[in-house]
Amino acid sequence: MLSKNEIKQIRSLRQKKYRRQHNAFVVEGEKSVSEVVKSHLHILKVVHTPRMSHAVVNLTDVSLSEVDEQTMQSLSSFTTAAGILAVVAIPDIDFTPDRFSDTVLALDGITDPGNLGTIVRTADWFGITDILCAEDCVDLYNPKTVQATMGSLVRVRVHYVPLAETLAELQRHFELYGLAMEGAPLHTIRSNVRKILIAGSEANGISTQVASLTGKFISIPAYRSNPHKRPESLNVSIATAIACYELNRK
Amino acid sequence: MLSKNEIKQIRSLRQKKYRRQHNAFVVEGEKSVSEVVKSHLHILKVVHTPRMSHAVVNLTDVSLSEVDEQTMQSLSSFTTAAGILAVVAIPDIDFTPDRFSDTVLALDGITDPGNLGTIVRTADWFGITDILCAEDCVDLYNPKTVQATMGSLVRVRVHYVPLAETLAELQRHFELYGLAMEGAPLHTIRSNVRKILIAGSEANGISTQVASLTGKFISIPAYRSNPHKRPESLNVSIATAIACYELNRK
Repeated sequence: MLSKNEIKQIRSLRQKKYRRQHNAFVVEGEKSVSEVVKSHLHILKVVHTPRMSHAVVNLTDVSLSEVDEQTMQSLSSFTTAAGILAVVAIPDIDFTPDRFSDTVLALDGITDPGNLGTIVRTADWFGITDILCAEDCVDLYNPKTVQATMGSLVRVRVHYVPLAETLAELQRHFELYGLAMEGAPLHTIRSNVRKILIAGSEANGISTQVASLTGKFISIPAYRSNPHKRPESLNVSIATAIACYELNRK
Repeated sequence: MLSKNEIKQIRSLRQKKYRRQHNAFVVEGEKSVSEVVKSHLHILKVVHTPRMSHAVVNLTDVSLSEVDEQTMQSLSSFTTAAGILAVVAIPDIDFTPDRFSDTVLALDGITDPGNLGTIVRTADWFGITDILCAEDCVDLYNPKTVQATMGSLVRVRVHYVPLAETLAELQRHFELYGLAMEGAPLHTIRSNVRKILIAGSEANGISTQVASLTGKFISIPAYRSNPHKRPESLNVSIATAIACYELNRK
């Protein structure tokens, strides 16, 4: 059972303001909950419906609450509640560039929660340990972002930073590559240097201040057919993933 | 102005049943509406708010209706209405394998509308002309799918077919490659043959019937680190896009 107050508090975590106030966020779904439970993150509470009891049998040192389906739906951020959620403490994220993987991502103006979550999941696949986000990016702990990471947020460190200042500092140790509509073909990127790959919003691209720091621009070659008949761009999470693949391929 | 009846009918097009009944679907947003207007598709009506008047000045032979913001929001499938939408006739889609591009996609059990739309947009970028969808895939004309295609649905032909039967027929002319978690590394795929790349759902993979036809399975190499610490999979639209990139790269 959950008290009315607990229900209200969990529901409030849909909003960034309350996530900051309570220093907590919600992870929904069996797969994602099992990822956070196995991780170093601090679980404050797991809530589940009777049909999800099997998923919590091994959770011994966690506060468990069973609720009915209707209560679970009222807690969920999704049209169809998964039947299990975890309330998780927002971790402190250690910013140590010396420990960054050789490829790092920087995101500028990524406001779609699904795109950010998908990028975190893809980064994890390709062994990218750290992502720098400009402060205008969507919050990592937005329910839709958490959902799209499919648990990868426990492994990838996402840093919200003043992006231009941070890149200006890091460019002493990393080459900066910007993903753009016009640029050298992706496969010409140098493989033997540490690098930061910068992706901007689909609507506005990389901001002027960040672009002015960027040494090289790269783009993903489209099929060479009638240029008037092709789409104007790729989805940003798709373009970023293709770039990560190419870098990992080398 | 729109009549109450017209408003009701446009709203009904959020549901597949009514899209089939009226043989029409809705495209929202300035960019996507401009793509359908330029295309061969038959536009039944364009509805816009006063602030979007600039977007319709060149539309001479189309039925136009101006509505207030509140009416537009009631028509929209999205939390924030874009201010312009087109009601478009569902086209007949010509199934002519001889005219397929050298790479074709086949989708099995893709139920997320955003994933299907993103795959259509990516296919367009890489010059893929045709996509085969199993009948359990989400409808192309679902508002979220239409949105995610960003206009590319005017160029890519999406066919809903009994997938196993169709592939059994087409394998005389195309090699069938399945995207799977276990398979040969993507870059080992043969470049000089016509091929169909099959992607299944993230939860269930390619269905048994389709998989039994598939000659070769390929997978996207993850970063070679501790295998216990990497995510279990990539998003299906990401995995498909990376495969399309690799095929176009060759």
